[in-house]
This record gives sequence, structure tokens and C-alpha cells, in this order.
Amino acid sequence: MIGFAVIGYGYWGPNLVRNLWSNPEVDLRWVCDARPDRLSGVPGRFPTVRTTVALADVLGDPKVDAVAIATPVSTHFPLAMAALRAGKHVFVEKPIAASSDEAARLVEEARRRNLILAVDHTFIHTGAVRKMHALVNEVLGDVYYYDSVRVNLGLFQKDVSVIWDLAVHDLSIMDYVLPEQPVAVAATGMSHVPGQPANIAYLTLFFDSPLIAHIHVNWLAPVKVRRTLVGGSRKMIVYDDLEPSEKIKVYDKGITLNDDASSDGDRVRQMLVGYRAGDMMAPHIDLTEALDLELREFIECVVNMATPTADGEAGLRVVRILEAATQSLGQRGQVVELSSGMVPA
Amino acid sequence: MIGFAVIGYGYWGPNLVRNLWSNPEVDLRWVCDARPDRLSGVPGRFPTVRTTVALADVLGDPKVDAVAIATPVSTHFPLAMAALRAGKHVFVEKPIAASSDEAARLVEEARRRNLILAVDHTFIHTGAVRKMHALVNEVLGDVYYYDSVRVNLGLFQKDVSVIWDLAVHDLSIMDYVLPEQPVAVAATGMSHVPGQPANIAYLTLFFDSPLIAHIHVNWLAPVKVRRTLVGGSRKMIVYDDLEPSEKIKVYDKGITLNDDASSDGDRVRQMLVGYRAGDMMAPHIDLTEALDLELREFIECVVNMATPTADGEAGLRVVRILEAATQSLGQRGQVVELSSGMVPA
Amino acid sequence: MIGFAVIGYGYWGPNLVRNLWSNPEVDLRWVCDARPDRLSGVPGRFPTVRTTVALADVLGDPKVDAVAIATPVSTHFPLAMAALRAGKHVFVEKPIAASSDEAARLVEEARRRNLILAVDHTFIHTGAVRKMHALVNEVLGDVYYYDSVRVNLGLFQKDVSVIWDLAVHDLSIMDYVLPEQPVAVAATGMSHVPGQPANIAYLTLFFDSPLIAHIHVNWLAPVKVRRTLVGGSRKMIVYDDLEPSEKIKVYDKGITLNDDASSDGDRVRQMLVGYRAGDMMAPHIDLTEALDLELREFIECVVNMATPTADGEAGLRVVRILEAATQSLGQRGQVVELSSGMVPA
Amino acid sequence: MIGFAVIGYGYWGPNLVRNLWSNPEVDLRWVCDARPDRLSGVPGRFPTVRTTVALADVLGDPKVDAVAIATPVSTHFPLAMAALRAGKHVFVEKPIAASSDEAARLVEEARRRNLILAVDHTFIHTGAVRKMHALVNEVLGDVYYYDSVRVNLGLFQKDVSVIWDLAVHDLSIMDYVLPEQPVAVAATGMSHVPGQPANIAYLTLFFDSPLIAHIHVNWLAPVKVRRTLVGGSRKMIVYDDLEPSEKIKVYDKGITLNDDASSDGDRVRQMLVGYRAGDMMAPHIDLTEALDLELREFIECVVNMATPTADGEAGLRVVRILEAATQSLGQRGQVVELSSGMVPA
Repeated sequence: MIGFAVIGYGYWGPNLVRNLWSNPEVDLRWVCDARPDRLSGVPGRFPTVRTTVALADVLGDPKVDAVAIATPVSTHFPLAMAALRAGKHVFVEKPIAASSDEAARLVEEARRRNLILAVDHTFIHTGAVRKMHALVNEVLGDVYYYDSVRVNLGLFQKDVSVIWDLAVHDLSIMDYVLPEQPVAVAATGMSHVPGQPANIAYLTLFFDSPLIAHIHVNWLAPVKVRRTLVGGSRKMIVYDDLEPSEKIKVYDKGITLNDDASSDGDRVRQMLVGYRAGDMMAPHIDLTEALDLELREFIECVVNMATPTADGEAGLRVVRILEAATQSLGQRGQVVELSSGMVPA
Repeated sequence: MIGFAVIGYGYWGPNLVRNLWSNPEVDLRWVCDARPDRLSGVPGRFPTVRTTVALADVLGDPKVDAVAIATPVSTHFPLAMAALRAGKHVFVEKPIAASSDEAARLVEEARRRNLILAVDHTFIHTGAVRKMHALVNEVLGDVYYYDSVRVNLGLFQKDVSVIWDLAVHDLSIMDYVLPEQPVAVAATGMSHVPGQPANIAYLTLFFDSPLIAHIHVNWLAPVKVRRTLVGGSRKMIVYDDLEPSEKIKVYDKGITLNDDASSDGDRVRQMLVGYRAGDMMAPHIDLTEALDLELREFIECVVNMATPTADGEAGLRVVRILEAATQSLGQRGQVVELSSGMVPA
Repeated sequence: MIGFAVIGYGYWGPNLVRNLWSNPEVDLRWVCDARPDRLSGVPGRFPTVRTTVALADVLGDPKVDAVAIATPVSTHFPLAMAALRAGKHVFVEKPIAASSDEAARLVEEARRRNLILAVDHTFIHTGAVRKMHALVNEVLGDVYYYDSVRVNLGLFQKDVSVIWDLAVHDLSIMDYVLPEQPVAVAATGMSHVPGQPANIAYLTLFFDSPLIAHIHVNWLAPVKVRRTLVGGSRKMIVYDDLEPSEKIKVYDKGITLNDDASSDGDRVRQMLVGYRAGDMMAPHIDLTEALDLELREFIECVVNMATPTADGEAGLRVVRILEAATQSLGQRGQVVELSSGMVPA
Repeated sequence: MIGFAVIGYGYWGPNLVRNLWSNPEVDLRWVCDARPDRLSGVPGRFPTVRTTVALADVLGDPKVDAVAIATPVSTHFPLAMAALRAGKHVFVEKPIAASSDEAARLVEEARRRNLILAVDHTFIHTGAVRKMHALVNEVLGDVYYYDSVRVNLGLFQKDVSVIWDLAVHDLSIMDYVLPEQPVAVAATGMSHVPGQPANIAYLTLFFDSPLIAHIHVNWLAPVKVRRTLVGGSRKMIVYDDLEPSEKIKVYDKGITLNDDASSDGDRVRQMLVGYRAGDMMAPHIDLTEALDLELREFIECVVNMATPTADGEAGLRVVRILEAATQSLGQRGQVVELSSGMVPA
């Protein structure tokens, strides 16, 4: 049994509590929130769980092995750092912290204390994204591009741009799915609410290879779109998260390049590119709740001292891009290099 | 009766010939193409039309008032310039020329000689785009963004990037639909065929106002998409050119901004943005063939010495952006300012 | 305050309990189910609600004014009849009873005792169906046809055909939306599970006017479809319940009939029919939970002794059609007349 | 070289002429139409083809081996019979004749004279339907149902119901695709134009096996639908003819029946049906023009005296169903048995 506490009981916290409560390997001991009104419903549904507004109650309980943090982003760092310093394993909402500096310090602290640090990149535990991961690595061939659109109407966040709110999903999926890391980012965007950060943004990510990635996020769209195209040399994928069941479609489509053109002139250049169109296949997608799988993995990592799929380094990599993209957006798309350095061991 | 000649009888030329042939105001006199094999089918279908491989035959015919040019882009300038110098009105395929310098010289020549110069921005004569133009100007309010996706598999063009092949459509539509001109462009993209120009590209267009425009073009997509979102302060539009009849949808959706917040703190900032969702309306779209309407307009302009919707200046504006986007793409998205200057009169 | 009890706590009962619990006008006193294991979760979530396996506890409680019955169909009649005889108002799941004879006896009993009897035709309280009701009555003109498809994979019901399981939804919607009642039904169908009732069925409903209605229900379809077309002389409707927001689309389409043809012959007959295609409009749909609205209406009816939208008579009309359709299906589509008689007062 | 003539040059005839003209094995000698104005465009496009309003010109030409008939249905019989009697092979538009009696007499005449008689069931030569044919016979297992919807707005035909105009397509596809022939039909429908035949109809087809088929046709629908579901014991198909490329989707979905239930009671009956959901596959569809393939097959049959896929018997089977369905529709769905007898040899 892993002793657990959930810190933050607003929008997402109840999902963590519900999942941890029904997990037989978990002793869910505390739910903590600074606002006592939010905690009133807990005892009725989860009779053995104590509630508190005092973080010290949670961190001072020696039977708490791990904490899950679901609070506003600006508080991730102080809460996670305090928990690590109290010797607790930490599972924290995305983005892992409000800056890459904060994220790097959490990674370092967890490593020094030999504690598990995981970030809740929920999407990478969905059946659709796990399938996409497998397809990209097994059948796509060279990856040519990754193009994602995530737009809808609302909800505008306070003081945080659409990049930190929506693109964080795409960046965490890309971090998991693609075989390499981006080396630079260029972002453009605009705010239509005076005094607020951008509500529409476009990110281009550059890699050392000819792979290119692009993310379009928008809080002010008339329709909801959640669609990603991934083009490879052998197959191409469409991932539409709004499809009820056929979320992933694999197309046996592409171009063939004729390298051995022995002469020059128009005819040869025209022959360089051939087109190929074969079957499309929509693999069956496992619809198990992602959060459930994710928490099970975290618990297993705590038990076996293993590394979660989305560890602190993954959280850090995503925050680095968010930060660089925000900087680029302020400079009308001026490219910003991404420091590729890991946190020194 | 306007005496007409068509120069270039490859992919698009036959459409011009078919339309001009059936227009009672037109005396279609010549079809000219450098490749005689292409001309063999003309006499059977259009018995009174002469064919030639010699441009001089066409330009030397005093009964030819106007020529339509449907040849490869690199030849637009010399052919159009020769026609203007021979005193002919000119209707030329898009893009109007291979560089803004060439385009400007055509505009200047036409103006000096008092001849009509039109560029075949076909899409702006479709019922859907004409409806979008009306909606943007009458009901959308302030225009917040213009976002277009034009992707499919093939056809890779030789020596011309996907920007010159596909984005030219979006730029010509934007030029017609939007109430202002862009002042700068940033473009990213990638080639996946060694030695060839980009087959995937992303363009961001900046304006003096908070309007932002973005175009995604791709020759290597598994699915065909032709979709534009236009967001305004009062309404939003989805234009999907692949819909058989409901090509334009107008959404009574948006945000409302509460300006008179008199106090500070969290609660007030949260109240700043409200959401509005009302009816959606798909207006009936006139499905008359765009090319037919466009040629009628050109002929009317020739008769009345009026200015076509897509005149040489429009062609020049679009080429300026194509040129700047190509430059930006070569510099990983470095923004390029657009000279707004018209050709001096 | 209306004293309430819920009988049956399987699939649907918890939704009734959740809604009634949060209604300030309701004193939810009992949840009753023959299987005690189902009741174990109730006290934790609804501390003031008592649970019992004995119907007598519920019916013997003088503070219980009304009961909601959510048990298998075969038990609707005995439970509802017992409740009415105990002087309780009754809200019962659809279909109201397992036969028209049973349904008629419930209607009679409720009327004699001056008690409210309502059937849970949930769909008619959705925003989409209420909008369709308004449109059919206000803008459609003469109603020409009502065509509904409700198919998906599973869940096969035991001992009940797909007609009683799925077509009951369409029949209750039709009963609410259409301006007249059907007078006869013809049904065809097939079972693909030996010894079980039909899992695919097609119902045609005849009316005194030229209106025709048709319902296609199928438990064995590879895709889920929930789509209704309603054709009228002035407008036509598409109601797609799987659309997240644009569930209702109103088409200004149709034919125009030229009556004053003064001569005969081919030309005139061809001119009889003209086609009209105008705008399409998708009205904003109220997404308030239907069950919530429905229970509020029932409570209001109990308080004011008013007639619910879906009263016992509506439940009886629907069961009559289910019964007749089942009979017709057994005779390869032999038409079965519907007795239009109300229960004698 | 096969000497050919086309009779009827209205809507469909020009397609026949265009295809036959470009076929190197065909000597297209005549185009014949009773209305001389229709023939005026022929010489310009097809210089070596003679035109005539006199059938005798065509039938008297000894170099004409075969005729293609594309005239109104009521004239199919006299024209085809005259052609057969003149010793010509016959390719005739669908439906093959206006009654099963006429169709049977054509079949008999062709057989007696050892001439090829084919009916233009165009759809069965499309890549989509040929693929469906292969799938139904190879992977579907037992066929459970065939359900087709073919609706749109217009064009109302004179004096012919929607069954003869639209359902004929579905019946010809079914005749080709399904492994057995229907034994009875029940049809309902309605006319909304006074004095005209039904513009909306529903056909149920019964077979000796538990297979059931259903066709919904409607000239008065606000949207265009061309969708067929075919359910089998091992796979299920969705055929959507409006999809640009993924016209056929094969679902690895269905139910599994547990036969060896050794005890009775609720639990066992619930276990009888299990659900299976696997991958979906959209095979690549050959988009070669159906008419081209069909005419090539006809010519091959003429050369080799082989039997076309859609021979006279196929045409007769379809007309028998059209006739029986029309009769059933007049009797509110009264089932009508189909005589299964072939034309006696």
C-alpha cells in the first residue's frame, strides 16, 4: 500500500481522488486545498479520507509516501519542492512548473533525493496516443512532419497564453511520440483581449533532421478541432481526438522518389516524384481511462523505483519549449534555439 | 464583339477556350501554343478558331483586342509584356508573374498604355468567396484572424515551392476578402525531396491592426482539406470548399469583453471574458462557374475601360507576399516586411 | 416539498436519485430495490435518504407523495398500480407498461383517483426535440414525412425486441412532435440470434393525411446513427443527435407545385415540380439536462394538478404502436390498424 | 472491330458515344435519335459517325453488330426487340424494360437467336461495388442484412415512381452482391404531388435465409445520402458513395453467440451475446470509370459469345422486384411473393 495525498481539489483534483480511492494499492489519506469550501463534499463520498487546508498536515504525515498536485501552475514549484524536501514522491499537473528554471530545480531535487517525479501528461496515456507512438516508431518510416490543430471557443485563461493552456498538450504528445527532440522554435500569435496574452498562436518546431512540426492553438474558434497529421516516408497518420472510436487512421499513402535519374531535362524532373495510394486502416483503440493507467504506472514506479514515461525531464523539456515559444511570439516569430542540455546529474 | 486569343493550351487553356467560345460577345480568333500536338483537338470542337505556334500571328492580328495567357509562370512576363506592347488587353493566369519586379513592370506598362490587365484569381469569383467577402465586410465586426488550410497529396511542382502553387490561392482570396493589407510575413516550411523547394509551408501575415492571418499548405498530406476560419468580433465564418453545398457557415459565436471592471483582483479578471453561442447559418451559395463570371467581368472592363476586381495591382500584391514568404522560409521564419508601395503612376 | 421515493436502482435509477436529491422542492425519502447490494452506495452519497427492499415501506409512508419507477418493463404495471392504489403520483420509465391493456388500466386508475401519471419519455425534454417540435408546428408547413434511423452495435436485450428497446424513443418523439396520430403500422424485421426477438426492424406508420413515418432500428450496425429527417411543404429538418451542438438543421428546401397548368402534354407535366434551395440554419440548442427539466415539470404538475407533456395517455399511445408493430413484424409487414380510442373517461 | 450504333442521344447517350468512340475495338457507325436537334453536335466531335432519326438506317446496316439503347424506359422493349430481330447484340439502359413480361420476352428472344443481351447496371462495374462484392463473398460470413439509403432533393420523374428511378440502382447492386435472391417484397411509400406516383418509398426484401434487405428512396430529402450497410456474421461493411475515396469501410465488429449454454436462467441468457470490435479498414478503390469497364466487358462478351455480369436475366430479376414492390406499395405493404422462375430455355 502506497500512502497518498492529493493537493488541490478544484477542477482536476476530484478525478485524481476518484481514481486513487478505487485503487486497492493506494491508501488515500488526505485531500488538501487552501479553500475549505471545496473540501466539504469529500467526507460523504470518501469516508476514510481526511481533509485539511494545511499543507503541513500532509507533509508531516509519515504514512504519506506520495502526493499528487493539482493546483494553479504558479504554485506547482513551491508545493512540489516542499513535498520533495519532505521526502515524498511527486505527481504534478502539467505544465510541471511555470518556468524551465523551476522545472530544472525540481528535477535536480528529485534526483538528489532518489524520489519519483512525474508530470501529468494525461494524453500520452490514452489508447489513441499510445497507438500513434507505436505506429510512428514501427511503420511510418522517416517522419516528415507533425501538424496539430487544437482550437475551440474558450475558456480564456487569466494571465496565461493559449500556448501554456493548449499547446502544452501537443508538446507533451510530440515529446512522447516523435523519435527526436526539437532544437528551435518560432511562434507567432495575437491577443484580441486588450492587456491579455495571446489567444491564438502558431508554433513551428525545427529539428536537426528535415522533420518539421507545427501547432495551431486558438481559444476563439467557432468550431472545435482536435486533429493531428503525421506524415512519414512510408505511411501517414490522421489522429482526430473528436472521433468517438476511429481516432487514429493510418494511410498507406505517400510519394516515391526516383533517385537514379540518369539524364537531365524536364521529363526526368517530372518523374522524380511518384504517388502511392493504398488502403486506410483505423486500428481498434483501447478506451481505458488514461488517468487510471497513468496513476497505476506512477504507483508501479514508486514501488519499483522505476522511471515514469512522463518524468520530470519530460516536464522540463515541454516547459522549455513553452518558454521559448512565448519569447518568439513576442518577437514576431524570431526563431529561438532550445538548449538541449539535460539537468546535470 | 471583342476579338480574343488564348495563349497556352495545356491544363487550364481549354477551360478558357470553352468559356470564350460560348460567349456571344467574344470573337475567339486564335489558340496559340508552342507545342503543336496540343492544338490538334481545337479545329474539331471550335471550327472557326485558328491555331498557331507563332505568337506573332496572334499579336499581329489587328482584330485581336485581348489575350488570355495560360502558360507556365516563368513565361507570364515576356508574353504579357509583348501583348501589352502590341496594344492588347491582357488576362493572365495566377500568379501574375514570377517576381514582384516583373509584376510591377506589367502594371506600369498597362497603365501607361491604358490597357486592361487582369489576373486570373479564379476563387474570388466563386459564389462562396463572394459570399465570404460580403459577410466579412457586413456582419463580422472587427476581423480577428484569417486561418486557412489547403493540403492534399500531390501534385509536386517542379522548381516551384508549395507556396507559389497553393498559398497563392489563399493570398488572392485574402486580398479580396480582408479589409486591410498585410505589412509583414513570416514563413516556415520544409522540403522532403532532396534538391527541391518546400513541399510544406506555414505563413503568418501581420497587419497594422491586431488582425493575424495564417496559411498552411502541404503537398504531402494523407487527406484533402480546404478549410478557412475567419474570426470576427461579432460573427465567425467557416469556409469549407469541399462541402458540396454548405460551403460557408456563419456562427453567431464569440466573446464579450467587460470593459468597465471597476475593481481589481481575481474575480474581476475572470469576468472580463464572456462567451456567446447562438445560431449557425449556411447561406445558399451561387454555384455559377467562377471562370465564366470572371471572363464576363474582364470583357465588361475592356468594353467600358473599367478596373477588374483582380487587376494587375492585386496580382502584384500577391506576388510580393509570395516573394517575401519564400525569403522568410529560407531564414527559418525571420519576419520580412512588405513594401506597401503601389506602382508609381 | 413533495415527498418522493425512487423504486429501482439499477441503470437509470441513480440518475433519478441524483436529480431529485438536488431539487430543493423535493424531500427524497426512499430508494427501494429488490436487490440490497445495489443500495449499498446510497447512504454515503445521500445521507438523509433511507433504503429498503420492501415496497411496503415506501407505499406505507404517508409523507411519500410520488414515486418514480425505474425497474424492468415487466414490473412497471404491478408497481405503478400498487403505487396509484396507495394514493401516490407516479412517474414511470418508458415504455409505460408491457402491453396496451396494462397501460390503459394505469391510465384509468390514475384518472379515477385524480393522480398524476407520467411516463419518462426523456428525449422530448431535450432542447433539440423541443426545438423540433416548435419548428414542425411553426415553419414546416404540411408535414410530408418523418424518417428516423437509430442503429448501433448492441446492447441486445433479453426477451424484448429492438422495437421495444429503440423504436420506443422514436415513437415517443413522434408522438410529441407530429400534429397527428398514426392510424396503422406495418413492420418488418429479423432476428439473427436463434430463439430471440428481432434485432433489426423497420416500421412504417400511416396517417389519415399523406404524412408517412418510418423508423429503422438495429442493434447490429457497425456504426452509430441517430438521425431523423422531417420533410415539410415549406422547410425540411435534419435532426442528428450525435452532433455535439448543431443537432437541428433547418433547410429552406423543397419543391413547388405549379397547379394552374392549363394544357396537357409532356411539357406541362415536367413543369409541375420546381425545386427550391435556400439557406440552412442550425438554431442554438438549449443543452440543459432533459431529465432535470422533466422532473421539474412532473413536480409542477403534482403541485398544480396539471397534465404532464408525456402523460399516461402518451405512454399508452406509444405502447399501442409497439404492440401493433410487433404483431405486424410477425406477419411479414401485414398492416395493423391502430385503435385510436382513448381510455374512456 | 465490332460495328456499333447508339440509339438515344439525350442524357446518357453522349456518355456511351464518348466511350465507344475512344475504344479501338469499336467501329462506331451510327448515333440515332428521334429528335434531330439532339444530333447536331455529333459530327463536330465524332467526324466519322453518321447520325439519323430512322431506326431502319441502323438496323439495316449489316456492319452494325451491336446497339446500345439509351432511350426512355417505355421504348426499351420495342427498340431492343427490333434490334434482336435484326440480329444485333443489345446493350440497354436500366431498367431493362417497363414490365417483367417485356423483360422475359427480350431474354427469350436473345437466347433463341444466340445474341448477347446486357443491361446497363452501371454501379456494379464501379470499383466500390466490385470491392463490396468480393468482401461479401469472401470475408463477411453469413450475410445478416443489406440496408440502403438513397435520398436527395429531385429530380421528380414523370409517371414513374421513385422506386423505378432510384431503387433500381440498389436492386441491381444487391442482385450482384448478395449470394441469394429475394423471395418476397413488401413496400410502403407516399406521393406528395397529387396525381403522381410515390416520391418516397421503403422496400423490405425477404429471403429464404434470415437475410433481410431494406431500401429507402426519397426524392424529397434536404440532404443527399447514398449509404449502404451490410451486416455479416464476421464483418460489416459501410458503403458510402459520396465519400471521395474511402467509399468502402470494413468493420471487424459483430456479436458472438455462446451456443453451449448448459443451464437456464437470467445469467445464461445474458451471456448468449458477446460484442466484438476490432480494426476498421478502408480498402483502396479502383476509380476507373464504370461505363468504360462495362462496355469493354460487353464487347468481350460479343466477341467470345460469353455472358455479361448483368445479362438479360439480371435485368429481368430487377424488373420483377420493381413490379412487385409497386404492387405492394399500392396495398400498404402487403407482402408480394416473387416468382423465382427463370425464363424457360
